[in-house]
Amino acid sequence: MSSNAFGQLFTVTTFGESHGPAIGCVIDGCPPGLPISEADFRVDLDRRASGRSRFTSQRREADEVEILSGTYEGRTTGTPIALLIRNTDQRSKDYGEILDTFRPGHADYTYWQKYGIRDPRGGGRSSARETTMRVAAAVIARKWLAERFGIRIRGHLAQIGELVPRSFDWDAVEKNPFFWPDAGMVAELEAAMNALRKSGDSVGARVNVVADGVPPGWGEPVYGKLDGDIAAALMSINAVKGVEIGDGFAAVSQRGSEHRDEMTPGGFLSNHAGGILGGISSGQSIVATAAFKPTSSILIPGRSVNLAGEEIEVRTKGRHDPCVGIRATPIVEAMLALVLMDHALRHRAQCGDVAAVAPRIPGAVGD
Amino acid sequence: MSSNAFGQLFTVTTFGESHGPAIGCVIDGCPPGLPISEADFRVDLDRRASGRSRFTSQRREADEVEILSGTYEGRTTGTPIALLIRNTDQRSKDYGEILDTFRPGHADYTYWQKYGIRDPRGGGRSSARETTMRVAAAVIARKWLAERFGIRIRGHLAQIGELVPRSFDWDAVEKNPFFWPDAGMVAELEAAMNALRKSGDSVGARVNVVADGVPPGWGEPVYGKLDGDIAAALMSINAVKGVEIGDGFAAVSQRGSEHRDEMTPGGFLSNHAGGILGGISSGQSIVATAAFKPTSSILIPGRSVNLAGEEIEVRTKGRHDPCVGIRATPIVEAMLALVLMDHALRHRAQCGDVAAVAPRIPGAVGD
Amino acid sequence: MSSNAFGQLFTVTTFGESHGPAIGCVIDGCPPGLPISEADFRVDLDRRASGRSRFTSQRREADEVEILSGTYEGRTTGTPIALLIRNTDQRSKDYGEILDTFRPGHADYTYWQKYGIRDPRGGGRSSARETTMRVAAAVIARKWLAERFGIRIRGHLAQIGELVPRSFDWDAVEKNPFFWPDAGMVAELEAAMNALRKSGDSVGARVNVVADGVPPGWGEPVYGKLDGDIAAALMSINAVKGVEIGDGFAAVSQRGSEHRDEMTPGGFLSNHAGGILGGISSGQSIVATAAFKPTSSILIPGRSVNLAGEEIEVRTKGRHDPCVGIRATPIVEAMLALVLMDHALRHRAQCGDVAAVAPRIPGAVGD
Amino acid sequence: MSSNAFGQLFTVTTFGESHGPAIGCVIDGCPPGLPISEADFRVDLDRRASGRSRFTSQRREADEVEILSGTYEGRTTGTPIALLIRNTDQRSKDYGEILDTFRPGHADYTYWQKYGIRDPRGGGRSSARETTMRVAAAVIARKWLAERFGIRIRGHLAQIGELVPRSFDWDAVEKNPFFWPDAGMVAELEAAMNALRKSGDSVGARVNVVADGVPPGWGEPVYGKLDGDIAAALMSINAVKGVEIGDGFAAVSQRGSEHRDEMTPGGFLSNHAGGILGGISSGQSIVATAAFKPTSSILIPGRSVNLAGEEIEVRTKGRHDPCVGIRATPIVEAMLALVLMDHALRHRAQCGDVAAVAPRIPGAVGD
Repeated sequence: MSSNAFGQLFTVTTFGESHGPAIGCVIDGCPPGLPISEADFRVDLDRRASGRSRFTSQRREADEVEILSGTYEGRTTGTPIALLIRNTDQRSKDYGEILDTFRPGHADYTYWQKYGIRDPRGGGRSSARETTMRVAAAVIARKWLAERFGIRIRGHLAQIGELVPRSFDWDAVEKNPFFWPDAGMVAELEAAMNALRKSGDSVGARVNVVADGVPPGWGEPVYGKLDGDIAAALMSINAVKGVEIGDGFAAVSQRGSEHRDEMTPGGFLSNHAGGILGGISSGQSIVATAAFKPTSSILIPGRSVNLAGEEIEVRTKGRHDPCVGIRATPIVEAMLALVLMDHALRHRAQCGDVAAVAPRIPGAVGD
Repeated sequence: MSSNAFGQLFTVTTFGESHGPAIGCVIDGCPPGLPISEADFRVDLDRRASGRSRFTSQRREADEVEILSGTYEGRTTGTPIALLIRNTDQRSKDYGEILDTFRPGHADYTYWQKYGIRDPRGGGRSSARETTMRVAAAVIARKWLAERFGIRIRGHLAQIGELVPRSFDWDAVEKNPFFWPDAGMVAELEAAMNALRKSGDSVGARVNVVADGVPPGWGEPVYGKLDGDIAAALMSINAVKGVEIGDGFAAVSQRGSEHRDEMTPGGFLSNHAGGILGGISSGQSIVATAAFKPTSSILIPGRSVNLAGEEIEVRTKGRHDPCVGIRATPIVEAMLALVLMDHALRHRAQCGDVAAVAPRIPGAVGD
Repeated sequence: MSSNAFGQLFTVTTFGESHGPAIGCVIDGCPPGLPISEADFRVDLDRRASGRSRFTSQRREADEVEILSGTYEGRTTGTPIALLIRNTDQRSKDYGEILDTFRPGHADYTYWQKYGIRDPRGGGRSSARETTMRVAAAVIARKWLAERFGIRIRGHLAQIGELVPRSFDWDAVEKNPFFWPDAGMVAELEAAMNALRKSGDSVGARVNVVADGVPPGWGEPVYGKLDGDIAAALMSINAVKGVEIGDGFAAVSQRGSEHRDEMTPGGFLSNHAGGILGGISSGQSIVATAAFKPTSSILIPGRSVNLAGEEIEVRTKGRHDPCVGIRATPIVEAMLALVLMDHALRHRAQCGDVAAVAPRIPGAVGD
Repeated sequence: MSSNAFGQLFTVTTFGESHGPAIGCVIDGCPPGLPISEADFRVDLDRRASGRSRFTSQRREADEVEILSGTYEGRTTGTPIALLIRNTDQRSKDYGEILDTFRPGHADYTYWQKYGIRDPRGGGRSSARETTMRVAAAVIARKWLAERFGIRIRGHLAQIGELVPRSFDWDAVEKNPFFWPDAGMVAELEAAMNALRKSGDSVGARVNVVADGVPPGWGEPVYGKLDGDIAAALMSINAVKGVEIGDGFAAVSQRGSEHRDEMTPGGFLSNHAGGILGGISSGQSIVATAAFKPTSSILIPGRSVNLAGEEIEVRTKGRHDPCVGIRATPIVEAMLALVLMDHALRHRAQCGDVAAVAPRIPGAVGD
């Protein structure tokens, strides 16, 4: 029931503070025999890393993953896999003056009320630095899901402030620092972010994520539903305030005759449901969305209180992200991967001997 | 890790199919000494019950709760509380012909793919009938939360199709069958629902829920966050496709200077966050929203396949809800209550000896 | 984390007090497709039932199991299976005078200290009546384990007071009311029990249990070890004070050269380990033992205190078992079955795609 | 449900192989505000360390604990505490030839059957090296239990082969390398161990552990019983084959009139129960015992098979313990501490607002 562990059977326990000695995780329940090396973590950690562009905060960690356990001669053994990243860019001196300050919109006040003590250095445990280990753990999940089922998980930024893509191309996503699917708008985004940075303010964002190739039957009714677990997973990411599956809130004003995804022997005719019915995957693409709030770490002064209960003015110093959503795409992908990995194992625990049943409707049509 | 259990410390395990002999639940972890009798369940079960108005389906269950264990002389003893409701209106003959049919937008196909067997009578386990026990279990949680902390949990319908309230009054909510906060619109809603029913179609809805009086400090970072657990809880309700905390998706286009809730010694100046920062309650009102899809049980024929994989036409018979969201408000309230109850216990497990720390900012201001 | 639930993946949640309206359980995680009917429970519940012989207490429950959910047309569907037994022989009047008495050797005092309230009728939740549902749930586990793996679980009484069997025959066990493997000693046991009953005293017992046919590889290091879970399972039975795996305490004075079970291509040469090495099954028979204390419900007066803290004399009235171990054999078998069922599912969750690896040594030799 | 995690609310997840880069653990759920520094681990790790005497194996690790997270300015913050120990004495060359050998009495064969892969270096994950982290984690538990409740946990060797103490003195225990309570027998033990080592064989042992000061009311019926959890905890230690609470197996031949612990206003008159009734602590000392088998790592050749399934002869090389029980006392203490810590938190989760109820009987008398 560890509050810092995610997943029932593929369990990822993370630890570490933003400016402590290290961050890390322990992955328990990984199937044995999967090839894993330290090089496997490079791509996704780089995708997530701060410092990727001028538009994300300038902390530059080496983020070198060390595998401490759980592999033998390059393969997982079934025992816990511990991953460690040393914090090399701690600069905790920068945070000296926020020791007795509660920043509005941050977890400073709530941690203090909960624990009666807090590590103020860089947000301590509440920092998004923790999400590095989610991405690292998901590298293993993604590899297994791809090898065993051909599952591919991809995300992209779908909105930033008022801006939405005017066209969509998966190939564009990895070619710009925003994970933006419309290559023609990148200059526009850069200009918007520069203006925002100059204004000292920040803006929210929306990230979409899609998993292709998930077999039908994953998800545990009624409190371990696949969509319920995705919702918890995405909402647990720093700054997320909303989650949708499939059409999400758009379904509120839809008609049943429009929303229900009709089926034919050739496949589903649409995917309003986002690939999940009754909490169980249908074989269609899993589609989810997360809403990120604008970061509260901005240069514009704000009202708050200090430890003595006195009114103060707070202003973030140094460079911070004008939009935390920009680098959130790999994290959203990671959380979806962790949910799917866990449900792959949960499904075969209970239903591992259920033979595939007819009729199996192709999932791809209408996705 | 039971998939049919909700909550880590206040654990509610539900069982039962829509048209089986009974539905029920076992509540484990309830503090001892709480007065509970069978009469306590009446109000909330009636609020939830189908058959409340012409606009919800006509199944009329007695829904008489029997307390099978866990109380002695009208008080909880700390042992598991089992609640049982016999299904008295089963009419399973009505469902004979859907035995080999997969209804679009329903869980028929996914249950079949998962388990290789399904109980087709009334949707079996995937029926919203299961939510009756969530409401029943939440009666106990709400009573304890009210007695110990003065917590009040209230919900209302916030949108139905394209209709949104033009005014807001909590007092109006319980006085109409829609849990609608604008008394002046009730006739309009009735007309809209009648027209919808005649058309044989359905529409989605949005339900808001608010918890007042939650102390600061509840919620477990980083994977047992209060908002993460609320997201899972609401998404686990039948037909829910989206969840928001506080401003939710509206935060995507907000600025940080607008979204962050500034604090003063007299209280918070706004509540965009919905009462949760870093996954922990701030002392402000907890505010959450759920989006309900339009039910797929409609009179308009739809394309599907049967067990033999042949294309068929499906049309729901009998009377069904034109909007399942209408009776969802008590269920959304119930799930928030169960989350809060669980976190009350989790918080005191780890932090039970943390004395209240200064400064404590009033939560009410700006809510 | 429910304290009244057993098992991680095959989760059995029990409820009910000795003299409440009913006892029952919810079984979550059962694989779909298993044939189960109410008749399946008859044999094992009768084996466990009090009233089997003159030497166990005279409560005579019908113990009719009702299946409330989780099956369709006689097969499990993968949804929770709820079982219910109404308490028909409550006679709570008999317990009126123990309301303010703490019986020595019972849970009266500890429940009172824990909860500040207790159900005194027949021991309430601490009564061995709860074990009825363990036996009922295990019926399902045993059936699946037998069908899928050919696993057979058998127990017998191995000591009662000072008496130990002088010969051993599995066939004798089910033919006498003591589950005693030496048919020639049954008259001797009857005489001993009669003498003990006349003396108003009680005596302890030892129960052995053996599971044949368990494949190698079940058990989860390092805190979900098969032997660790068996130890918890057996120790959770009322009146158990000790648990052994294989040679158990005899290993203390053994030499390594004697204890280690040598292996040959034809099989293991001995089974001192009880079929478990490093917490994982070896393919040999699983062998475990439980020590039962003498019941404290005896006619001989004992010193105690009452609710007012005054010294009193306690004497059990009515008929009680001179040895609770006599009817414990089916309960010990049940707990072993529940552990094995759970580990069968846990094993295939993580290692479901590990093909059987050579060399596989026959388990039977030397058992 | 992580198999490498122990405890529900004070959750210790361990990782690491005997000859991998490091071992470590993550402790989640520790109450905030507890003073902890790296120096706190020294005493107990030294007590446990191999190399303490000539009679335990000669591996000499520095066993320097590094605290990676969860503390700020020397106090716990409520976030996960990660502890790391680098393996400095790996010498994996020594293990080259056991790569394709299954040692009898070890986990080699069972790990291989379970996972289809194993880390053969020093036993990999099945090595008792893992218990180092149990002792480290328990340092934190013991400190909190002592500060909050005055709980003291002490263990001693109670039998080694045929030898049992002829006198008992707690003060003697820490003054000899055997944790033996009879100072006058130490020379005798040394001689016995020397003879055993020369013979190339090993012998079993029995360890007793006692916790004083545990309040009444800890333990969760019916599947989270204090004694059930102790049984699992002790049985999970490498080489343990039996567990007793209180009188344990001696209760089999006791009478009820002898075993039941009578109560008076002045206290209990005996403690046959080992401080636990109905799974809940009584306020008396908690008393438990573990039986350790003789290690299978001996110089005397034994029969086994290799990876090819061929019959081979196995003989352990290098120096190994003639009795693994000698250094087990701190591990047994640690596991009892972890169980008690977990139950302290579990108790206050559910019953945190139950005021102490009268009468409270002194636990000390008769212990």
